[in-house]
Amino acid sequence: MNAAAVVGVQLGDRSYSIQVGSGLLGAPASYQSLPRGSGAVIVTNDTVGALYAKRLKAALKDVYPKLDCVVVADGEAFKTWQTLKEILDGLIEAQADRSTTVIALGGGVIGDLAGFAAACYMRGVGYVQVPTTLLAQVDSSVGGKTGVNHPSGKNLIGAFHQPLAVIADVDVLESLPDRELVAGLAEVIKYGAVADDAFLGWIESSLPALLARDKPSLVQAVTRSCHIKAPVVASSEREPGMRAILNFGHTFAHAIETGTGHGTWLHGEAVGCGMAMAADLSARLGLIAPTHAARIARIVAAAGLPLRAPTLGVARYVELMRMDKKTEAGQLRFIVLEGPGKAVVRGADAALVAATIEAFGGGAPPRL
Amino acid sequence: MNAAAVVGVQLGDRSYSIQVGSGLLGAPASYQSLPRGSGAVIVTNDTVGALYAKRLKAALKDVYPKLDCVVVADGEAFKTWQTLKEILDGLIEAQADRSTTVIALGGGVIGDLAGFAAACYMRGVGYVQVPTTLLAQVDSSVGGKTGVNHPSGKNLIGAFHQPLAVIADVDVLESLPDRELVAGLAEVIKYGAVADDAFLGWIESSLPALLARDKPSLVQAVTRSCHIKAPVVASSEREPGMRAILNFGHTFAHAIETGTGHGTWLHGEAVGCGMAMAADLSARLGLIAPTHAARIARIVAAAGLPLRAPTLGVARYVELMRMDKKTEAGQLRFIVLEGPGKAVVRGADAALVAATIEAFGGGAPPRL
Repeated sequence: MNAAAVVGVQLGDRSYSIQVGSGLLGAPASYQSLPRGSGAVIVTNDTVGALYAKRLKAALKDVYPKLDCVVVADGEAFKTWQTLKEILDGLIEAQADRSTTVIALGGGVIGDLAGFAAACYMRGVGYVQVPTTLLAQVDSSVGGKTGVNHPSGKNLIGAFHQPLAVIADVDVLESLPDRELVAGLAEVIKYGAVADDAFLGWIESSLPALLARDKPSLVQAVTRSCHIKAPVVASSEREPGMRAILNFGHTFAHAIETGTGHGTWLHGEAVGCGMAMAADLSARLGLIAPTHAARIARIVAAAGLPLRAPTLGVARYVELMRMDKKTEAGQLRFIVLEGPGKAVVRGADAALVAATIEAFGGGAPPRL
Repeated sequence: MNAAAVVGVQLGDRSYSIQVGSGLLGAPASYQSLPRGSGAVIVTNDTVGALYAKRLKAALKDVYPKLDCVVVADGEAFKTWQTLKEILDGLIEAQADRSTTVIALGGGVIGDLAGFAAACYMRGVGYVQVPTTLLAQVDSSVGGKTGVNHPSGKNLIGAFHQPLAVIADVDVLESLPDRELVAGLAEVIKYGAVADDAFLGWIESSLPALLARDKPSLVQAVTRSCHIKAPVVASSEREPGMRAILNFGHTFAHAIETGTGHGTWLHGEAVGCGMAMAADLSARLGLIAPTHAARIARIVAAAGLPLRAPTLGVARYVELMRMDKKTEAGQLRFIVLEGPGKAVVRGADAALVAATIEAFGGGAPPRL
């Protein structure tokens, strides 16, 4: 099967396309338009590699007679400077040159690591994203953000480096744990909430099919999400403000993730709860009707995402949100809804923020 | 004293200017047009830092109320992944954010390290080059090439990241060891040889003044060199072939440096000898008169640069040149002169290359 849909990301001479469909990963046709160069190096982790590297290699072997593979450990804990060095050493060992293409096979961690390695190797070689999680397919594989974590913060070290192509094959989502599928749906819901109310309605009615991993529904969800993200990525190179609205729910989510210790909540779970909180705050600011905020919360819950925030206490939430990169000049700023499918960046009164945190159960003092 | 000259590098919204003059490093005016942001972090080494960091800090303190300094060890041996990590940790410790400016105070090693750290920190922050060697002033600080060495090769890991500004103060060349001054002159001679025969004539007559560190002569040499490099850098983003001519002499130089072990010959010394060899090869190819090749060799010698190539043997030279990144599809290619002030990329017959190596004394078997 060929791509069910192709989404273009317009970035001048760095433009690229996202293929979305079923059967793409193992089809040589998916890679035909890539530059041949001197070869390719697949970068993957031990979990995903065991499942899909063989199929990918079979598809790539006619395109790239020289094909190597670098396998790193699985998990966000390995999104480090040290793993980046391992990948760069692997590229050198494979005698990669300036015309080598790096193929990132994995979720967001692999995409960020392999993309950053491609950005640094010989001052930049091309790379292809083959995302294997729903989150990576709808979010992290598109936009060129790459990087590693530092003990002092996530993604502190990295580069903007656009891929040559993104191959989003929904077949690989079959092996995704339920919890990660649900976490990925949070970002899909986000696109509907901030940019396309009709899409939000479609998501609402399609949640049972999406949760059952119905392929046409997954293709539709990924395609529409990428359609919304692509022009934002293209315009945000000059207008970073545009990109901000894609962080809807993320200020609360950042506090939840950091406050509970990274890894306790999945990012998508925190974003799910964070979106319901941001919608609630939007209603408190008088920007949307309380019924619309309740609808966002209902969709979040129906997807299987948590609606109850961890009880860190209001003061701790505010402290954590202040540490967020998106805070400017000390003032807390939020992406809020100003209508169905419309988002905007706004400052918010501390009392309203506190009321939202309390309403979601986050304000009670931590139990000792 | 203000800048004696300002050279513009035209790169759209990444355009910047190179200020060349005397008294620039310690003058607050040199930094007035830089973005303020939240502060600046000086990156330097222990040798240069001891000489100039105090003067630079005094000039910067009114521009950047928050000013930090990261000091690393001096030398090419420290242009490593490990030192890069030290600088990134230093930026984090200084609580640098996306609006922080990195100030690279030092020679090419510091410029490459600090520039690469700036490229990676939070996916890219601005940086300023304050080059303290002649080589860095006329070459490495201009063009945005940054990176670190790897045990398998020089500059294997790095990024293109253009500086916000270059401040080339010839006063700092007073403390430069003679040998490094002479090595820097090799690149100055190169600009004349490949792009401006009138400049080459000026260099020829001005060598005594340049070697005596006459400031107006140094300002003229740096300014004219940057004037020649700037449009090549600007055009080479789309036409990498243009940038190649600035590698005149570098294919032979690469073989000399690698064959003798990096650090035995200074890069500029190898480039000096390499240019004389490339000019000789140009004459053997019938592209220029033997008298012009002899003139290049005479200027190289008058600058105090070596004219006798190390006796590695012809076969070893060819092997080393094949390993050079500039070799394409296995064929040896050289930047050769096709007239006074005119360079071009050409393949060359192995017999002619061997004759050139022999003529410069490089062909004799190594003495055991």
